[in-house]
Amino acid sequence: MKASAYLIPTAKEDPQDAVVASHKLMMRAGLVRKSAAGLYSYLPLGLRILKKIEGIVRSEMDLAGALEFQLPILTPSEIWKESGRWDKMGKEMFRLKDRHDNESCLGPTHEESFCVLVKPMVRSYKDLPINVYQIHTKFRDEIRPRFGVIRSREFTMKDAYSFHLDDESLDKTYQTMRKTYRRIFAGMGLSTIPVQADSGNMGGSASEEFMVVSPIGEETLTICPSCQYSGNIEKTPVILNPKSSKQPFVGSEKIHTPAKKTITEVAEFLKTKEENLLKAVALWADGTYVLVFLEGDRELNENKLKNHLGCNELRPMGPKEMETLGLVPGFIGPGFPKSVNLKVIIDSLIDWNFAYISGANEVDYHTSGIQISKFFKDDEVSKIDVSQAIEGDPCPNCGTGLTAEKGIEVGHIFKLGQKYSKAFDITVLNDKGKSTTTTMGCYGIGVNRCMATVIEQCNDDKGIYWPVSIAPFTVCLVSIAKNPEDIAKIESIYKALVAAGIEVLWDDRDLGPGFKFKDSELIGFPIRLTLGKGFLEKGEITILDRKSMVEETVPFTTNEDLVGKLQNQIQALHETLKKEVEQAGI
Amino acid sequence: MKASAYLIPTAKEDPQDAVVASHKLMMRAGLVRKSAAGLYSYLPLGLRILKKIEGIVRSEMDLAGALEFQLPILTPSEIWKESGRWDKMGKEMFRLKDRHDNESCLGPTHEESFCVLVKPMVRSYKDLPINVYQIHTKFRDEIRPRFGVIRSREFTMKDAYSFHLDDESLDKTYQTMRKTYRRIFAGMGLSTIPVQADSGNMGGSASEEFMVVSPIGEETLTICPSCQYSGNIEKTPVILNPKSSKQPFVGSEKIHTPAKKTITEVAEFLKTKEENLLKAVALWADGTYVLVFLEGDRELNENKLKNHLGCNELRPMGPKEMETLGLVPGFIGPGFPKSVNLKVIIDSLIDWNFAYISGANEVDYHTSGIQISKFFKDDEVSKIDVSQAIEGDPCPNCGTGLTAEKGIEVGHIFKLGQKYSKAFDITVLNDKGKSTTTTMGCYGIGVNRCMATVIEQCNDDKGIYWPVSIAPFTVCLVSIAKNPEDIAKIESIYKALVAAGIEVLWDDRDLGPGFKFKDSELIGFPIRLTLGKGFLEKGEITILDRKSMVEETVPFTTNEDLVGKLQNQIQALHETLKKEVEQAGI
Repeated sequence: MKASAYLIPTAKEDPQDAVVASHKLMMRAGLVRKSAAGLYSYLPLGLRILKKIEGIVRSEMDLAGALEFQLPILTPSEIWKESGRWDKMGKEMFRLKDRHDNESCLGPTHEESFCVLVKPMVRSYKDLPINVYQIHTKFRDEIRPRFGVIRSREFTMKDAYSFHLDDESLDKTYQTMRKTYRRIFAGMGLSTIPVQADSGNMGGSASEEFMVVSPIGEETLTICPSCQYSGNIEKTPVILNPKSSKQPFVGSEKIHTPAKKTITEVAEFLKTKEENLLKAVALWADGTYVLVFLEGDRELNENKLKNHLGCNELRPMGPKEMETLGLVPGFIGPGFPKSVNLKVIIDSLIDWNFAYISGANEVDYHTSGIQISKFFKDDEVSKIDVSQAIEGDPCPNCGTGLTAEKGIEVGHIFKLGQKYSKAFDITVLNDKGKSTTTTMGCYGIGVNRCMATVIEQCNDDKGIYWPVSIAPFTVCLVSIAKNPEDIAKIESIYKALVAAGIEVLWDDRDLGPGFKFKDSELIGFPIRLTLGKGFLEKGEITILDRKSMVEETVPFTTNEDLVGKLQNQIQALHETLKKEVEQAGI
Repeated sequence: MKASAYLIPTAKEDPQDAVVASHKLMMRAGLVRKSAAGLYSYLPLGLRILKKIEGIVRSEMDLAGALEFQLPILTPSEIWKESGRWDKMGKEMFRLKDRHDNESCLGPTHEESFCVLVKPMVRSYKDLPINVYQIHTKFRDEIRPRFGVIRSREFTMKDAYSFHLDDESLDKTYQTMRKTYRRIFAGMGLSTIPVQADSGNMGGSASEEFMVVSPIGEETLTICPSCQYSGNIEKTPVILNPKSSKQPFVGSEKIHTPAKKTITEVAEFLKTKEENLLKAVALWADGTYVLVFLEGDRELNENKLKNHLGCNELRPMGPKEMETLGLVPGFIGPGFPKSVNLKVIIDSLIDWNFAYISGANEVDYHTSGIQISKFFKDDEVSKIDVSQAIEGDPCPNCGTGLTAEKGIEVGHIFKLGQKYSKAFDITVLNDKGKSTTTTMGCYGIGVNRCMATVIEQCNDDKGIYWPVSIAPFTVCLVSIAKNPEDIAKIESIYKALVAAGIEVLWDDRDLGPGFKFKDSELIGFPIRLTLGKGFLEKGEITILDRKSMVEETVPFTTNEDLVGKLQNQIQALHETLKKEVEQAGI
């Protein structure tokens, strides 16, 4: 492709609304343009990258035996009502009515649609397992779209759904998808960590997110430096650190703590550690009142609590509700008036015999020497892990102190179990002729987000450096020649490259060399070939490796010679990536 | 691909709601499934075909120098208001509100979006011409979706938009697109006729539709059997046939025609030809009252009238409106009470001096001997062509009698002119540094509709026969073998075909040969290779050409020998198509 016939609308300045590198660089390199909040247009260069990413996803999914479909974006409300998600999905779902007043939504995910479609096609255990997928546009009405295409309202997603006779078969496909995902991401140059994750409103028994470590990540993951463990912090089990020990507070039993309501305020006021205090969190969960006790330095992990309670809505109790139950806001302690209407949960980190400081159930007073065991019987309360993990907590596998990192989620796999197969009554006859409800898995990848994430990992002060597998063009040929004879020489090289199947962008624009160099470094073609003065005078070419910025000047005899040299260099880039893919898929 | 690992949900029975061949066959061959009214899911086999069609469109567009983009489906109402189409598009546009109550629509077409996107990228005449396109999902809330994917509510469209400094440049790209379109359609085996068309609410000066002649077509086209002329009947000029002559009705001047209101009733009652009567059509057009006179055997062409009046809404006048104007419903003749509030239009076919029969402006009476010239002065009325062409009308080019055919529209190209460039103020500096408003073209292809149209053209009583370029697989290998040794033999042939780059579906399902043969003929793979008894016993293979259903039994020595034979046959199919493409693009 000649740049003069192409569109390369690069910009020097970062766009005002961009705060992360990928967003800035996608705009500056002319890959995308914003059309409205959370809506982006892909320009030719950007679309080439996106299509290559799609290509990698497709070929690995096909290799894993999945079958590609394409389903409508518009999905009728009926099927969402059948699964019970029409109301649950809330405001993130774009809804609309057609001219006959029938309600639909723009599919944010397609469990329902695929269930309805696949159901009549699977009748016998012989038809299973089946893994179906599509690469198509999805919609989510994000409350706050941001980071460019990382959190947008319209995006391309690869979503796959597998159907099985039993859990064993589901696990097999789940493990295959796990490997496939690692291969897919490695294939586009992304290093990912699969982490234990929460299933959210998808239902199901197990799920893993594929995380790319990045300071701009919206998720926090815990990683064990010695074993293979990694988890989303929302899901990381917190276990007691056997090495930790603490000194109880020594002082008067009833303490006047005027206007000291928060743990931090009280600890500072009493000059003690926060862990010596008891934190009480009063909540409303789907109509039930819940009171949770945690150690003072811990935050409540709402996901853990929600999963334990099996509730949909969780919110703090209001002052009036607390009053009705006899709870004193800011000063709740284990001696609160017990009630059948109030469920008590004691975080598993709490030492039942340690003497904590807690609220005195009286305004402006705390009490010390509070032992949980004196207030509750074992079977009266739930003792479960509801605290958020923090850096240094013991690894749930091996006990080593965990580290915490920010991560971007690029993929997510779920064991859905029978949630949807039951809702849509997807049964097959097993090998004994008995009708059996199928079980399901689902597997998603955010395609556009992958593109942005690669940029987050592959950028420097000059711009982007694309992994060879998804670069918009492999080679950028920069030429500076004015007279027809020189141009003809360069054109013959360009043609030789194209004929050899090398994806080359020849920057033949009527611009100075500095401008062309900067553009090629900003956009990030893996290899730059300069045919400048050295070429015209001495027959030398300069080859730049964009990632390392190492430049080499090589003589060459014929066009074939040059093509061969370039092919070797490109081949080497592919080989490196291929090794990473093989490594990742183990 | 092995059929046992694929999805081939064929059916014997036609679906109940399908009335046309393509709809029936797409369902029966397991290419698509209906998810709701006008919404279809593509199954793996169907999607392969769709992607191949997209591939042909993409490669020809790229060859013609167009640049591929991808724009959001959600388009904000603001840009539609800027062009004035937010209200005009009516109920065909799916509209919705986001969580912040901002209005959007699901783009049915993208003139507005591309204008906003391209505007800042073109500053100088040097940036022009530019032709941008996308292949993406579009939405139209059809009042009556039908014929399967031919008229659906969600579909894939290739839409392109070109921007130019002047009309000359626009015309050049328009002609290129015209050729490109013919190549595209020929490339998928479709024989198309470009016909003069009406621009509808797109605005602009010229447009052509690419029609495939088919009895299920929703459009009527007129074709001249001697010259190159062809037109949409909505746009076909009607000129006086110099050979036609007629005899005026002889009888009493005022005729009692009790309860005879329609032209047919009156003509039958008076035993005269309909062409001897004057037809009066009373209408309301954007607030203006219009009375049109036509010869009795002609229908009003509303598009012609709309274009002449430049109006948006046209409807018959109501009885009360007619009464106010002094018009007698069913009996209007040229002697009606003239009024400044009533615009009169005389169809250009009318002979001003012929003695017609017309309504007598009195209930139950007609008058004969009515000469238009006695009632109107030349400058008092509009004399224009507003009648619908009929078979036998003279060709507007050469005068030969036109034939009429039904056609399916698969593509449409428009010279838009400055309608959108003005609305979005898209200007560039010309070579003299003067700011100049650009002019535009736009070019659309219905991708899914192409798929259905190919089936309409390529089917027989057994099913579909796909042109080689868009067949889901080129070769279907049917094997009937049970013992491992035979299966291994067949597998080695299958692998040799795959290794040679031949797209082959090996029907290794545990089904009888008759079932497999029927499936392969229904789905329509161009070539079927049978490795049955003849192969296992005598080393013979049977090759079937699906289109002609000619079967040939050939001996072969090695796998390479077989691969070579097949490659020749496939090559021949491609060559034939290629010739048609070259021919079409001239």
